[in-house]
Amino acid sequence: MSDKTTIRRLPDRAVADTDQIFSILDAGFLCHVAYLRDGRPVVIPTLYARDGERILLHGSNSSGFVRAAREGSPFSVGVTHVDAIVAARSGLHSSANYRSVVIHGHGSILEGAEKAKALDLIVDWMIPGRVADIRRPTEPEVKQTSVVALDLVEVSAKARTGGPKDDPEDLGSDTWAGLIPIEQTRGEPIAAEDLDPGIPVPDYLNNP
Amino acid sequence: MSDKTTIRRLPDRAVADTDQIFSILDAGFLCHVAYLRDGRPVVIPTLYARDGERILLHGSNSSGFVRAAREGSPFSVGVTHVDAIVAARSGLHSSANYRSVVIHGHGSILEGAEKAKALDLIVDWMIPGRVADIRRPTEPEVKQTSVVALDLVEVSAKARTGGPKDDPEDLGSDTWAGLIPIEQTRGEPIAAEDLDPGIPVPDYLNNP
Repeated sequence: MSDKTTIRRLPDRAVADTDQIFSILDAGFLCHVAYLRDGRPVVIPTLYARDGERILLHGSNSSGFVRAAREGSPFSVGVTHVDAIVAARSGLHSSANYRSVVIHGHGSILEGAEKAKALDLIVDWMIPGRVADIRRPTEPEVKQTSVVALDLVEVSAKARTGGPKDDPEDLGSDTWAGLIPIEQTRGEPIAAEDLDPGIPVPDYLNNP
Repeated sequence: MSDKTTIRRLPDRAVADTDQIFSILDAGFLCHVAYLRDGRPVVIPTLYARDGERILLHGSNSSGFVRAAREGSPFSVGVTHVDAIVAARSGLHSSANYRSVVIHGHGSILEGAEKAKALDLIVDWMIPGRVADIRRPTEPEVKQTSVVALDLVEVSAKARTGGPKDDPEDLGSDTWAGLIPIEQTRGEPIAAEDLDPGIPVPDYLNNP
């Protein structure tokens, strides 16, 4: 992936950079978390939410990345959106348009009211408006789940945009060149088999 | 191969065999690679292709994961497809339907004819049929790029399918429950600004 712009956010960096990092994070909900297990890296996919200047990850108390956070493992978290395949006239310049953020740091385990609030935030991150519509979590349910917070301090963002950047000598080629857009969309909601058919799809899903 | 494949099994998340691991890998082209840098995990997004019983990753010679492969770092590679958001009647059972593969191992650097063939495979993985249509790589171009191969030996796969699995006591709720499908699609090809308008979109893009 060439022709990248790279933004690195360290404490006190410019707001514009931060806005770009936030907008990449705000466009997604799936991340890949890398942590150490016996000195080796382990990567796993998990869901996240952004909560101001940090991201929140949740998992069962026994999941590997939660235990790693408890043990003080360093973390590296990646979030990537692919926007297009870049079809250039040579293999070298063939690429992908994408936006990605990588966060480094140590996770902290949230507890008490902060944890309960974080669990709500994660539900509403996936489906804005959902928390107000579902049953409140019980105390045992909250205890089953752990929430790991990672501060957005050591963060880098990269993006590639635009068409292929071919070598001048390749422009006379009769090979087609351009972009194949990649789109991720939400489809029409599908009711659960055990849903009372009289219950309509809520507005927050019909008009998100 | 299946006797060497580790499948992590969870109540409704077991993926049965190697074919299923291959089919998850074959449905994508973006992975997140975790490697060690100064004893800490680093995760980065990159493109991959499956080549039989291994995956191929490519990057510039100076990219972090290529250097890590040269230095013998252990790798962990994740590939994930999200198929739906699972909207349950409680936060605890709210989830996502997904298919994911995680590969552990050490990367080996490909050279010579094997590397040249791998670069072609990667181009055709993104756009089947593309290699036959583009300029052949020059020797300096091949030298600029590194290809890292990772054997599909220590691999785990997880998947969640189906609707929400709510607690029996929540089924009387008047809350809507179900799935919000997530779809990733390829859009209509967009010609490069410098493309001769007389060059049509090739068949392998129109009818992939």
